[in-house]
Amino acid sequence: MSNLMKKAPELIVVGAGPGDPDLITLKAMKALQRADVVLYDNLANQEIMNHCSSACEKIYVGKLPYGDYTPQEVIHELIKEKALTKGTVVRLKGGDPFVFGRGMEEILYARAEGISASYIPGISSMQAAGFEDIPLTHRGISESFWVITGTKKDGTLSEDLKTAIQTRATVIIYMGMKKLEEISRAYVEKSAGDLPAAIIQHASLPHKKMVIGTAKELVQMAANKQLKHPALIIIGEVVRLASDNFCEQVENFAIRRIA
Amino acid sequence: MSNLMKKAPELIVVGAGPGDPDLITLKAMKALQRADVVLYDNLANQEIMNHCSSACEKIYVGKLPYGDYTPQEVIHELIKEKALTKGTVVRLKGGDPFVFGRGMEEILYARAEGISASYIPGISSMQAAGFEDIPLTHRGISESFWVITGTKKDGTLSEDLKTAIQTRATVIIYMGMKKLEEISRAYVEKSAGDLPAAIIQHASLPHKKMVIGTAKELVQMAANKQLKHPALIIIGEVVRLASDNFCEQVENFAIRRIA
Repeated sequence: MSNLMKKAPELIVVGAGPGDPDLITLKAMKALQRADVVLYDNLANQEIMNHCSSACEKIYVGKLPYGDYTPQEVIHELIKEKALTKGTVVRLKGGDPFVFGRGMEEILYARAEGISASYIPGISSMQAAGFEDIPLTHRGISESFWVITGTKKDGTLSEDLKTAIQTRATVIIYMGMKKLEEISRAYVEKSAGDLPAAIIQHASLPHKKMVIGTAKELVQMAANKQLKHPALIIIGEVVRLASDNFCEQVENFAIRRIA
Repeated sequence: MSNLMKKAPELIVVGAGPGDPDLITLKAMKALQRADVVLYDNLANQEIMNHCSSACEKIYVGKLPYGDYTPQEVIHELIKEKALTKGTVVRLKGGDPFVFGRGMEEILYARAEGISASYIPGISSMQAAGFEDIPLTHRGISESFWVITGTKKDGTLSEDLKTAIQTRATVIIYMGMKKLEEISRAYVEKSAGDLPAAIIQHASLPHKKMVIGTAKELVQMAANKQLKHPALIIIGEVVRLASDNFCEQVENFAIRRIA
């Protein structure tokens, strides 16, 4: 490539949203349209990639054949190599890259390498819970929500979750499907096992699955509907608002209203 | 209007995003394109309304001339009247309608009146903080974030905030600009007055304003840059990642890393 042709190296970390391809922003769509290279994760829906030009190089950096994830160092190397040789690199991540997405790490890496780097937010899967009539806040029921990861670096359950249980916050747990038993136990220990709880997989997509029950029975709930990672767990009174079909299942639980 | 022409009554509660018109989703854009009536709030940017057809009736239901907000009952009446007489009503709200937006109240009202009602999420202003290099989570720094309203129905500061201060969660406060003094006092009382804090107004727009300081000095911070409602307050170590210009101001504050 001649110097005249060479584009300035650039990284754009882009949120793909929860799955429905129409839940991408116009800004993200335009970034994909002008991308020279897209590094993409395990997206809930590959249709979003159709916004890329035919010349765009598409590289999958999600789960490898033997079950391991592409190491972060490998992704960093790809960002550097592709930005310097081809120009505009879009790093496409499901949901929002700044909600447990490690997006800022990639931006900081790129800038340290002299590559200009920016961010475009995406609709996070907690927002897609709204399609199941679960708002994150609701006047008189929830005045705050607490968003937490179920998977800490060291494998333990977050201390923050144990604190959150004692408040009236709607609790939203990402990456918690391998911790269902521990999460239920934490709620039962704080006498909150009867709080309404939902597990949602593929929110916003036609093949979405949801189950509603209580905080103490997360394991059975997931087993009954064969829900597994990646799925979102929502615990709190707002779950009570979910569509009538589901609410029958929790009708015995009085809404714990805010004083 | 003849019966043959009459469209089924429908309400779509739509998130307009934080202000940048390109931060609307494709799904929201399509809803605006087919709307017969749009009921809109004080949007950060009116440009989004350009997606509406020329036949679409646009009704402002935000702040009234004498400073009062349009009462919720009046909005409910308009939803009913317009859906029944004209068809598809879009209720357009800044940010995400299910994040302190009272969106679910309007959906429940519409359904009780026999009007089918649905929701389209929007990018919330906390996500637009990412444009200032403030991610909501960052590996090793923040494993959760707590989103709270500064304005409770009864005017008091939320008890949940006092609990949140004692955790490692990034704390995000919506509608808190009239409570700056109380918020600072709550942090100081919990020995957390030195935590980095940001106030952001018009995030994602060219005329955005941001100030960075510490939790104990929110009042002075807002005064120095003349920031006022509506603005977002973010308190926690992730603020330390904000662009270098700003970080100089907080370089004395060591990052409180998660064990």
